[in-house]
Amino acid sequence: MAMAASSLFTCSLQEGMCFPETKSCSKNFLCNYVNPMHKQLGCSESRHVRHPRFLLNEKSLMLKETEGLSKRKGILCQSVKIENPPSFTMGKKFQLDDVIEAQQFDRDTLSAIFEVAREMEKIEKNSSGSQILKGYLMATLFYEPSTRTRLSFESAMKRLGGEVLTTENAREFSSAAKGETLEDTIRTVEGYSDIIVMRHFESGAAKRAAATAGIPIINAGDGPGQHPTQALLDVYTIEQEIGKLDGIKVGLVGDLTNGRTVRSLAYLLAKYEDVKIYFVSPDVVKMKDDIKDYLTSQGIKWEESADLIEVAANCDVVYQTRIQRERFGERIDLYEEARGKYIVDRRVLEVMPKHAVVMHPLPRLDEITVDVDLDPRAAYFRQAKNGLYIRMALLKLLLVGW
Amino acid sequence: MAMAASSLFTCSLQEGMCFPETKSCSKNFLCNYVNPMHKQLGCSESRHVRHPRFLLNEKSLMLKETEGLSKRKGILCQSVKIENPPSFTMGKKFQLDDVIEAQQFDRDTLSAIFEVAREMEKIEKNSSGSQILKGYLMATLFYEPSTRTRLSFESAMKRLGGEVLTTENAREFSSAAKGETLEDTIRTVEGYSDIIVMRHFESGAAKRAAATAGIPIINAGDGPGQHPTQALLDVYTIEQEIGKLDGIKVGLVGDLTNGRTVRSLAYLLAKYEDVKIYFVSPDVVKMKDDIKDYLTSQGIKWEESADLIEVAANCDVVYQTRIQRERFGERIDLYEEARGKYIVDRRVLEVMPKHAVVMHPLPRLDEITVDVDLDPRAAYFRQAKNGLYIRMALLKLLLVGW
Amino acid sequence: MAMAASSLFTCSLQEGMCFPETKSCSKNFLCNYVNPMHKQLGCSESRHVRHPRFLLNEKSLMLKETEGLSKRKGILCQSVKIENPPSFTMGKKFQLDDVIEAQQFDRDTLSAIFEVAREMEKIEKNSSGSQILKGYLMATLFYEPSTRTRLSFESAMKRLGGEVLTTENAREFSSAAKGETLEDTIRTVEGYSDIIVMRHFESGAAKRAAATAGIPIINAGDGPGQHPTQALLDVYTIEQEIGKLDGIKVGLVGDLTNGRTVRSLAYLLAKYEDVKIYFVSPDVVKMKDDIKDYLTSQGIKWEESADLIEVAANCDVVYQTRIQRERFGERIDLYEEARGKYIVDRRVLEVMPKHAVVMHPLPRLDEITVDVDLDPRAAYFRQAKNGLYIRMALLKLLLVGW
Repeated sequence: MAMAASSLFTCSLQEGMCFPETKSCSKNFLCNYVNPMHKQLGCSESRHVRHPRFLLNEKSLMLKETEGLSKRKGILCQSVKIENPPSFTMGKKFQLDDVIEAQQFDRDTLSAIFEVAREMEKIEKNSSGSQILKGYLMATLFYEPSTRTRLSFESAMKRLGGEVLTTENAREFSSAAKGETLEDTIRTVEGYSDIIVMRHFESGAAKRAAATAGIPIINAGDGPGQHPTQALLDVYTIEQEIGKLDGIKVGLVGDLTNGRTVRSLAYLLAKYEDVKIYFVSPDVVKMKDDIKDYLTSQGIKWEESADLIEVAANCDVVYQTRIQRERFGERIDLYEEARGKYIVDRRVLEVMPKHAVVMHPLPRLDEITVDVDLDPRAAYFRQAKNGLYIRMALLKLLLVGW
Repeated sequence: MAMAASSLFTCSLQEGMCFPETKSCSKNFLCNYVNPMHKQLGCSESRHVRHPRFLLNEKSLMLKETEGLSKRKGILCQSVKIENPPSFTMGKKFQLDDVIEAQQFDRDTLSAIFEVAREMEKIEKNSSGSQILKGYLMATLFYEPSTRTRLSFESAMKRLGGEVLTTENAREFSSAAKGETLEDTIRTVEGYSDIIVMRHFESGAAKRAAATAGIPIINAGDGPGQHPTQALLDVYTIEQEIGKLDGIKVGLVGDLTNGRTVRSLAYLLAKYEDVKIYFVSPDVVKMKDDIKDYLTSQGIKWEESADLIEVAANCDVVYQTRIQRERFGERIDLYEEARGKYIVDRRVLEVMPKHAVVMHPLPRLDEITVDVDLDPRAAYFRQAKNGLYIRMALLKLLLVGW
Repeated sequence: MAMAASSLFTCSLQEGMCFPETKSCSKNFLCNYVNPMHKQLGCSESRHVRHPRFLLNEKSLMLKETEGLSKRKGILCQSVKIENPPSFTMGKKFQLDDVIEAQQFDRDTLSAIFEVAREMEKIEKNSSGSQILKGYLMATLFYEPSTRTRLSFESAMKRLGGEVLTTENAREFSSAAKGETLEDTIRTVEGYSDIIVMRHFESGAAKRAAATAGIPIINAGDGPGQHPTQALLDVYTIEQEIGKLDGIKVGLVGDLTNGRTVRSLAYLLAKYEDVKIYFVSPDVVKMKDDIKDYLTSQGIKWEESADLIEVAANCDVVYQTRIQRERFGERIDLYEEARGKYIVDRRVLEVMPKHAVVMHPLPRLDEITVDVDLDPRAAYFRQAKNGLYIRMALLKLLLVGW
């Protein structure tokens, strides 16, 4: 069956097309798997058939009822006892149930995800649309608008042959507006889809959703909290552009206090060897101590600098961020002062090494001047594109496994 | 051709996949059918080829022009005279043109729809996405938001391989805002799609749309009026959970004055034998006399009760509903009083028979306590899921027939 | 390969279905083409493989780097030198990169597009969904709502087997709201899709987008500016309904000052021989001199008339338009006066020739009475439907070529 699975995969690489027969036949061998340590409740039936965590021979499968759960078909779970689970799914790093926060990824998982992302890049470029996720439905449950992120996920799903249900104004989700809990909403939506990509205004909402859902949840940003797929695409971009992650020098520039992305990025970079991080920011938006302390505890060298030119001359990556006006409230004066302070322009490019790159999570205002776009080292639009590959990889991993 | 049609259907059951050849070949035999008693005007051409009501041999087909309609291709209809129409489509109950109101379904039609819904459940669980509705386009024309209902319909369409056009804010449908009539909007949208699922704020809007449209209309709720698919999924859920409809005892609890769903449910239950209905509601939101009188006229036993525990002990189904705050306007005091009165909690579960179930149209606030969710008899999330199967069934029936 | 391509095309005409094998095989021969005179920057990789302008044998392909562009894969372009480009793509009229304004189409291009539109009509009617655009993704980037136009484009894409990413409130596109330039937004979105259909509130926005994008842009209306697909479908409808364009007599009625559609229509009609145009409008909304002068310069006969009946008696086409209340601001009195002046009703129909038609861009209020709908000469709903065929044709031409 492993063979069938890989052949399925190969064919989609070679032709960007899996033939119905192959597909449905392999499907006949899919069996539901529910991590017993996790999510006893709320596993929708659709997950039982649509969200296998791995493939195995039907004969080797025994079902035993979990204590206190009824015979009723429906949303209750079954735990599955497996004899000789196939080796290719062994190993902790392959247990990817949900994508909730950057902290959940160790170095091995990251490189495994990046490997799949590179496959996705091939698929997106060389085929007329893959069919790997044909028959799967993704629900984008967005409690606050984020068109860029939503389009990126929906494109990823569709590039792999999957389908999408869209809710951009889930906050006015009629039922939510009427006072329904997030948990109830998730239980309803999981009945209609195979995976939920959620954007929420409350920190921790994604974790709550994942605790309820029987299908995978991807956190597409929860308020001031996490935006793990952004963090993954940032690290992936560095590896793709610079060719390595160990031993790199990264300058984080701009709003380091409120910038969710720079905080997650610093966190993930700490997983690599011999990394050096420079913080370049106006005083009002300095990097907070929690991250600095964490870096120190991990033996990561970091320093603060007020000289962008000097930093740019020494770095492999200049990661610029937008000063977020909305954080300054009435103090427009402080905003204007902070905003003008560190601009990436031709002068910065001149001192940057040939191999270095400028990154930015986008949107950018004038913290990077437009003339920089013409320079090959301007990586921010490639970075945005990498978001597509990372999201394709995560969708593939969560829905059909490694 | 009947054979081809059924084989088409079987294959989709077996593999969840129909092969292009089969599909297109069968398509070659499709012919347009317009019920002559119905919809002389406004039949879009697309319906002529995309919305057959049954299949027959082209040779056995004679076209005759309807009086006063021109030769022009376009939105005018043709009536079709059929020699020996295939038997498997005979019978009044198979004439499903639109889904407008609960009243349109007789007992036979209901059980026929439920039979298809059960097939849909198999398709959704055992296949990697059916292709039954491949090539069909559904437009969701929502004049007021109802994300739950919209997602359920869109999921149903996509689970069957169909495609969707979404309009969640049709009220600001640029043209509607400019004063276009509903009829004109329908005539435009029917040119872009094969079926329209409409949610509207005005009672009767769905009927008007159906009178205009040449393609099927499904009423996804029109204001205080009807929400027929909810009524169908409620009855379907009772049959699935209890195993029968004749002779059941149902307790309707909560807001019985404004609850559209309980009113439709009571109406449909009247079609079955030996049913007993209990009304349990605060005085301010009692069931209205029209339904009571109707039940009496149909020989259905009903009584009002103030004792939820006693009712729960006697019923197969406890159907709880939300007290709708929006109906109380300024009188928050009345709302709060009504709201706290009848809560389904562990105490209620203790007296309920083992085989009985708790249902709720959702969203629920605290009228059912969260600890009830863990009990196998909590059927409300399965009920929501059944909405998917009922909608899959209706889409299949309206687009490709029985 | 030309053969393979045409066979691909034929099969989709015959069966409305291309078999995966054929498709992917032909895909293997696709090569990227970038018009060197155009769009040096911003060509997304996806375009390189997904947006071929023609097919050719891989061996006959040599890549040469464009001056000053780096080796980096990414958003920079490569120009492609072709030995013996296949003849079937030669000829200026076949160079369709974007659809920005009515002025860009010459008479030959128009008739070529109309020819494809007629093919699309066959596909939409005779097949269960074509697969011509399978694997292609269209992004609808709407900065102001226009549900009618959006649905029409999305239906067109899906009728051809393509997929869609929707943004109806791009104005609140989180990043746009934060001050991102249109250019940056386009560079991001082009990374997620193969073609962008844009509606914008600013005149000229589509041109700016096209200058930035490496994938085709279709202007779905930019403020007071252009709405080229409407203009195309109007001319197409006249040809379909009257059977010719040379020598026709057209009466343009209603708001000729603000009516974007009548202005573009007059402009396009000037490309044909021996055309006569009548302007019938209230004084406050007369046709502006620029169009009148242009018509004169092109040798097109035109006159203004206050007598709708007389004009209707002489015309092949009576093109009625809505008096746009929003243009009158406070002067409701002027609006009401203008609005009642020229109504197309049964009286007008009585004097119209049998072969003539009434057209209207829709939405209509009461400038055409409802009883007119029953007359075969009422072409406005067929006209709306033609919008689908024209958009299918443009999507096909821009994505897979002639």
